[in-house]
Amino acid sequence: MSDQNASIRKNLKVSMIVIGDEILNGRTTDLNGSWLAKYLFKMGLEFKALRFIHDDIDEINQALSASLDESDIVITSGGIGPTLDDKTKNTLANFFQKKIIERQDVADIVTNNYIQFGRSWLPSQNHYHFFPEDFIATNNPRGLAPGIVYFEKSRNKLMMAGPGVPREFTEIVEKEFFPLIKKYFSDRFQENYQTVLRTIGVAEETIFFELCPTLWTELEKFGKVSSLPHTIGIDIVISYHGNLNEHEKTRADIQKLVQNSALAKHVWQYGNKPLNEMVLELAIQKKVTFSLAESCTGGLVASKITDLSGSSSVFMGGVVTYANETKIDLLGVKPKTIEDFGAVSIEVATEMAAGAILKFKTDYAVSITGIAGPTGATADKPLGTVIIGFATKNKTQARRFLFPGDRIRRKERFSDMALMTLLKLMNDEI
Amino acid sequence: MSDQNASIRKNLKVSMIVIGDEILNGRTTDLNGSWLAKYLFKMGLEFKALRFIHDDIDEINQALSASLDESDIVITSGGIGPTLDDKTKNTLANFFQKKIIERQDVADIVTNNYIQFGRSWLPSQNHYHFFPEDFIATNNPRGLAPGIVYFEKSRNKLMMAGPGVPREFTEIVEKEFFPLIKKYFSDRFQENYQTVLRTIGVAEETIFFELCPTLWTELEKFGKVSSLPHTIGIDIVISYHGNLNEHEKTRADIQKLVQNSALAKHVWQYGNKPLNEMVLELAIQKKVTFSLAESCTGGLVASKITDLSGSSSVFMGGVVTYANETKIDLLGVKPKTIEDFGAVSIEVATEMAAGAILKFKTDYAVSITGIAGPTGATADKPLGTVIIGFATKNKTQARRFLFPGDRIRRKERFSDMALMTLLKLMNDEI
Repeated sequence: MSDQNASIRKNLKVSMIVIGDEILNGRTTDLNGSWLAKYLFKMGLEFKALRFIHDDIDEINQALSASLDESDIVITSGGIGPTLDDKTKNTLANFFQKKIIERQDVADIVTNNYIQFGRSWLPSQNHYHFFPEDFIATNNPRGLAPGIVYFEKSRNKLMMAGPGVPREFTEIVEKEFFPLIKKYFSDRFQENYQTVLRTIGVAEETIFFELCPTLWTELEKFGKVSSLPHTIGIDIVISYHGNLNEHEKTRADIQKLVQNSALAKHVWQYGNKPLNEMVLELAIQKKVTFSLAESCTGGLVASKITDLSGSSSVFMGGVVTYANETKIDLLGVKPKTIEDFGAVSIEVATEMAAGAILKFKTDYAVSITGIAGPTGATADKPLGTVIIGFATKNKTQARRFLFPGDRIRRKERFSDMALMTLLKLMNDEI
Repeated sequence: MSDQNASIRKNLKVSMIVIGDEILNGRTTDLNGSWLAKYLFKMGLEFKALRFIHDDIDEINQALSASLDESDIVITSGGIGPTLDDKTKNTLANFFQKKIIERQDVADIVTNNYIQFGRSWLPSQNHYHFFPEDFIATNNPRGLAPGIVYFEKSRNKLMMAGPGVPREFTEIVEKEFFPLIKKYFSDRFQENYQTVLRTIGVAEETIFFELCPTLWTELEKFGKVSSLPHTIGIDIVISYHGNLNEHEKTRADIQKLVQNSALAKHVWQYGNKPLNEMVLELAIQKKVTFSLAESCTGGLVASKITDLSGSSSVFMGGVVTYANETKIDLLGVKPKTIEDFGAVSIEVATEMAAGAILKFKTDYAVSITGIAGPTGATADKPLGTVIIGFATKNKTQARRFLFPGDRIRRKERFSDMALMTLLKLMNDEI
């Protein structure tokens, strides 16, 4: 653990090549790269590099050659479908100087892939069963095209080509590719852990240059340190190798260090759980219900909550009251309050929360009204102003915040601040 | 236009290097790469490759060397902040064999960067003003650290390093880097266009192997063809170079070709507009209002609509009625309807839409009730079942669909199907 870099270098290295014109011309956002980064980290493998290239034979050859030089394992995504722009299979065969032949074992796999969708496959439909000799074909648990794998014995390199569609790619990597990695490199796994300090209400620079000038160096004794700005705060991540016991000791040591520092009061979580999960788990644990009244976030807070299975047991529902009339009709906000103070005001946010808790008969209600932009700002209410209101059985209140960003990013920040309010509310911290 | 590849090769090539442990260990999802892909395409530059690497001197050197070999322009993101893990500036200086010196012109830029946030900067705060000789420092319109630029005259290569935070990166590229690219490569711009056929209700294989077996080859006469599965359909993209007049002629020719094919009835758009924008524009154009009643999508449809500025003029609001009680209380769904048919039923969806149109006094209302999973399936209502209901002044109806995916992807698909329903409704197509 003391020689951090040495221990990292012992790891298995993986490079990824994302093949597809649609990614490089910006039509599609790649999701497989970021997913694989998370997955490999969890599995204790080192993600060496990620290349995005066109559906082009020369580019595939070049990227493959560079990736195989630097890594033990190369995973590609994209270009294994049946259409004419799918060039991966032929290019890989040529690269490893293997002939493409008609293979019955591959035809069987393709037949199975089709069966899982209740469909039948005929060799006349496409060329899936023409496959490079000595290559391994794998099942595709959520798609039709087989995975394409080759282990180069002479250099101990494993090449694996999967589909570009994210739901197919993630599943083929977990169910088919990872077992093969374990098989070919069984003795080289090593565990990797992180301790995350999630802070709120303090800028990155303030933490490391004013509040705790020695913190970075002290944390580096435990492992590699990164500082990551998030929607409404800064996460500090410390990564290290070791077993689970060592990890638990390291995490406790880090926690002790930080709890005795000026940063302590800004840390809202020693861990890595998304805010919506924290809210849902706490509500379930405390057996309480909540509801939402959203104006400027337009349903995003409710959507974040309902992203999680099990949310229906504690989240009774919400209203998106974008228009003033609906604030009045659905939540009982008084027209005069809107007239006197404006829709974005402490007073309206308070009445919205009070209306929601009554309407949905919940233990808590949170309301959001603000100016996401790009229009709607006034002299005393600049773009990014948001009022988060809340109601419990005993009190109703609201607080004002200001966040940077464009419309979309402000909606994100406003929503996370609403979730944070709900979390603090259930923890009796406000 | 006939020699597609030759015309592409004349383009300026750009490689990008995303620097940051947090990306490769999966803590953060990179947004700059996919944004840059779109931006470069719009600007007519070719995006050659995108590398993701650690905050590591050797990796930066290696990636930089490879990127400069293959491209005219190299853009990096990340690692230019004030903390100790930010290694980009020093590494770039060493790479180009430039000394780092204290520079007053850079101090002035940093001072300006701070002023835009109403803050003052002192040289003692950090080392921003220690900067490689002969390098160009740029403003950072939404951040503090200056952009780092170097033009290598001997090889005609432009290297530009920007911040990792997406709102800073996108702004610095648009406002600072792109003008420099234009300055150094003024005579090498070329326009690039796409025609997009957006289809619904037909599988990729069905289009190209059954419905229109010659379509791909015919489309290739116009340019490069890609086929991209989206949430609820397949997009077919044809990309080509030329001027705007040529583009308009090409698009018309492609449209004529497709309108005479078996695919025509599945195309819902000859263009590239997101569904939420189509809905909003049509509602504004037709001067109609709409509201939403969401169960399983949990606010996501409302959130997609309110992502767009101007939505408040046509979108009156919505309810998220996750619990049965709130379907009854807020939308007037009859308890007996839920009892007899279940919450996920044509009957309940119809009553939800009827309730919403009354409650919000809108011209249209759309309702969504379904099973996003992972639990809740029954024998006759498998996971992925969704009922989309709608109400107009004259009628209420509902339709049943089935979508694949996990919970999150189903929410996406359900939401897009609801938007599609709204679009067809306003177009009097259902």
